Order: sequence, then C-alpha cells, then structure tokens
Amino acid sequence: MNQRAVRRAVTAVRVRAVDGDGFLDRPDKLVTEEPMEIRVHGPGQEPRALAVTMRTPGNDFELAMGFCFTEGVLRGADDVDNVAYCLAGEGEQEFNVVTVALRHPVTLDRPDRRFVANSSCGLCGKTTLDELEQACDPVSDGPVVASSMISSLPDRLRTAQTVFDATGGLHAAGFFTPDGDLVVLREDVGRHNALDKLIGNSIAERRLPLSDGVLMVSGRVSFEIVQKAAMAGIPIVCAVSAPSSFAVDAANRFGQTVVGFVRDGRANVYAHPERIDVGT
Amino acid sequence: MNQRAVRRAVTAVRVRAVDGDGFLDRPDKLVTEEPMEIRVHGPGQEPRALAVTMRTPGNDFELAMGFCFTEGVLRGADDVDNVAYCLAGEGEQEFNVVTVALRHPVTLDRPDRRFVANSSCGLCGKTTLDELEQACDPVSDGPVVASSMISSLPDRLRTAQTVFDATGGLHAAGFFTPDGDLVVLREDVGRHNALDKLIGNSIAERRLPLSDGVLMVSGRVSFEIVQKAAMAGIPIVCAVSAPSSFAVDAANRFGQTVVGFVRDGRANVYAHPERIDVGT
Repeated sequence: MNQRAVRRAVTAVRVRAVDGDGFLDRPDKLVTEEPMEIRVHGPGQEPRALAVTMRTPGNDFELAMGFCFTEGVLRGADDVDNVAYCLAGEGEQEFNVVTVALRHPVTLDRPDRRFVANSSCGLCGKTTLDELEQACDPVSDGPVVASSMISSLPDRLRTAQTVFDATGGLHAAGFFTPDGDLVVLREDVGRHNALDKLIGNSIAERRLPLSDGVLMVSGRVSFEIVQKAAMAGIPIVCAVSAPSSFAVDAANRFGQTVVGFVRDGRANVYAHPERIDVGT
Repeated sequence: MNQRAVRRAVTAVRVRAVDGDGFLDRPDKLVTEEPMEIRVHGPGQEPRALAVTMRTPGNDFELAMGFCFTEGVLRGADDVDNVAYCLAGEGEQEFNVVTVALRHPVTLDRPDRRFVANSSCGLCGKTTLDELEQACDPVSDGPVVASSMISSLPDRLRTAQTVFDATGGLHAAGFFTPDGDLVVLREDVGRHNALDKLIGNSIAERRLPLSDGVLMVSGRVSFEIVQKAAMAGIPIVCAVSAPSSFAVDAANRFGQTVVGFVRDGRANVYAHPERIDVGT
C-alpha cells in the first residue's frame, strides 16, 4: 500500500492511556473503518445498490470487483467495463460509493437481495439456509507444499503488512506461491474484505484461478473465507487461528486443504492433508 | 453454559498435527459454527425470515431475541409471546430455525430487508449508507469505575469462558457491575452474536437497560458492537483489542465510554474518559 493509502487507512485520535501510575493524554492511531456502498449495473441499466460493507479505505475498486466476483455477479476481468467512485452530490460520503459497470446486463437472482456487510461479514444477502452456499466447482488438485513453508507464512504475512504496524487492528490475507513467495497481500479491518481485495486484485491482474498457491489469513477461518477462496480456485487455506466446524465441512466438500493454528513451528491440518508434505 | 450446551458448541474432528519432527493424526475439537435462521411474526401473521446468522449453537432463543431487539423489531420482554424452534420438516436444519412470536404486529420498515449475517456480522440488511445507524437514544451517565477494575476484566472474562478452553476459537461478551462482578457472559464464534445473546438474556431477565455496568468483549470493538451496546443502554464498552475509527465516532455520538487494548495492566480510553477514575 502506498503512503497516501496508508494515511487514509489510519485515523489519528487522542487517547487517554491509563496504567497503574495514572494517565497520559496522547495522540494515537486507529484503523479506519468506513462504510462503502457497492453499486452495479450493466449497459443501459441504472446502478443498483448491491451492498454496503464496513471496510478500511484503500484498494476500494479491488474490493468492489472481488465482492462482485465472490457473489457471482461477475466472472472475470472481461466482464468489467469500468469501476469508479460516485462523487456527485454525495457530501461526506465521497469516496464511499463505488460503482461497477459490467459489459453484460446484471440479473441478480433475487431482486431484494441487498444488504450491509460489516467489517467481518462476507455472507450477507441470503435469507434462507438453502441460499448460503454459492455455486462453485471443486478446486483443482493444485500443488503439494512443504509443511516447513506453511510454518513460515505467519512471519511472511506480518512482515508484508504495512497498516497493521500503525494500528494493531488489521486483518491480512496473503496469496503465496508454493515456495512461499508473496504474490499479493491486502489488509482490511475485516478478514473477508481483505480476501475480496486480494481476489479483486487477481481479477485486475488476470491471475484467476488462483489454483497454484496458498492463501494465508490472519485470525480465524470462517465459512465465508473458505467459500470465497473456493470461488477463486484456491486449493490451500492457512490461518493463524482456528477454523470453525462449518468451514471445515465446506472445505471437505470443495476439496480444499485447511490448515489452522499455524504458529510456533506447528500447524494443524483439518481437511485434505494430502497437499501438505511433512517430510521436508 | 451447561454441559449439554457445551457439547453442542464443540465439534469433534480428526486433525493432522504437523511440526518439525513429522505429524500425528489425533482427535481435536473445533468451535461449532452453524447457520441459524431467525423468523418473526405477530398475532395472526405468517412467520417471515428476518435473518440467517452464522452462530455457535447455544442460547439460541436469547440470540433470536437479542437480534430482534438490536434490530429494533422488539422493545422488551413484554413484546414477546414465545420463542420456539421450528422443527417440522426441516431435516438436518432441526434446531437451526428459531421463530420469535411477538404480541404486536410486525411491521418491518423495509419489506425487502432480509439478510444473512455471518459469524462476525451484526449490521446486515441495510442497503444504503443512510440506513446504517439504528435509532437509539444517547446512553445515560451511568457509573464511574476504577481503572484498576477495568484492568482486571480480561482475566475475569477468560476465567468465566467455558467453550473457549476447549477450542480456542470463541469470542466472549461479559457484562459486569461497576465493582467488576460478572452479571452474564455469553460466547459465540461471532463477537456480535455473543453480545446479542447477552442482550437477549438481559431481556428475558428484565434487566434492560444495562445502564449500571460495563461491557467487556474479547477482540476488537467494531461499529456494530458500539451500536448494539447503545441500544441496550450500556455506558462503558471495553475490549482486549483496538476499536475502529467508526466505532469511536459512534461512541462519541452516543455518549459512550470506549476503552481498548485492555491488557497487561494498561488501557486506552478513546471516548468519554470521564467515567474512568484513574486515581484508584
């Protein structure tokens, strides 16, 4: 992230720091969380609000494209005519409304599927239990990677984070080659936004499907992380913390490897361990 | 949480534990994450799906009531006729559909406001930026508490958690008296669900508004945590990790005290420090 983007991702505040000896009023920095409305339309169609998501400003166009992709509204770079901020008459919401113009007419399967996603939410918009799972094919076989490489991912992820250092409040999602080289990293106050930004970048770079590499996320692996990764074709999903039961169920169905508690040289493989080579 | 509930909140899995010396296939426990559909209706009305939320099973009726409350659909215990699982014909979704029957007709302000909340999502269902904030009054003055008591809250919260010990994957929300005595604690894979359960319990116990105490949450303070706390009248919100900028903005508007990074005997007060007595 460049310096201007980092500045916008961080908000300066005053804080009263308290400890056993008293208090000190001093400046501090917080991760910025602001709502962003995503609108979508096809040729000749009026833009329609698809979602509002609580996100950290930065890579907003990637977030909008990634979200549309993981929601099944667009399939790749060729579908995108342009992505733009809606600036007219928005007042303080300037830079908080992004419109995705597609080359094909948008047919949302549910005309009333509209929603807000908060900074940790990636599944909004479905009403009933049957609608939870996006249609997506099982991931391809993909690479076999060394467990020692997996163990190195948390350090590689943290080293590449720029905004976290300033605030301590950011999730990260990084995509790595089978040898552990970083391809792209995105940060956001929400895990799922970081992943949508990463996927949006991969759309713009025409890198999809991400079938030859490893996703590493900070924090937990929830269902929507596994599902979004599957939409992008990612065969191996790793995380610093625990997966949920539903995430592991989904990964087993999608054919994905899930590795949790990657820390201190150890790791737990919860689904499809055949992609992890423990002999190296 | 009783033993039966803890069993349901935890899912037994097989895991391949990897370290530098090789691997071991062994049993493990994951926090359970399952979708729950919340339906609501008034007298003579058909139940309507209000939301699907990804939650940890347990205290489901409290979650349903708390969610309806923080979404503005019910105002207190007197509004509730009954809360029940919908068991007929649901197959494997048994115990994953909860219907809240209210004593008054349900008039959702937006007929198309329906949504899925994932395990970390508490804001779903609004389409535009203007709809983000629930109408709620500023909180009352509430107590002044000692900073030393605030510093003790993470240990008190962790000690009271029952499911976290088994899985390492759960968020907690605890409500404490000004002296630091625990009133109620709820756990969930989602921060906002833990708080909705806590509020739902407070509705059932006719304890609202929660104007004479302190909320302590694990993890971050995001906007929806501050907003839900404000709906319940909670004047002081504390957390182990960072608040977001939008959360602090909202707390300033609602008149709430926000304390972050409560750890290692220190704490940072980001909004309304007048309720924190640093002299004790």
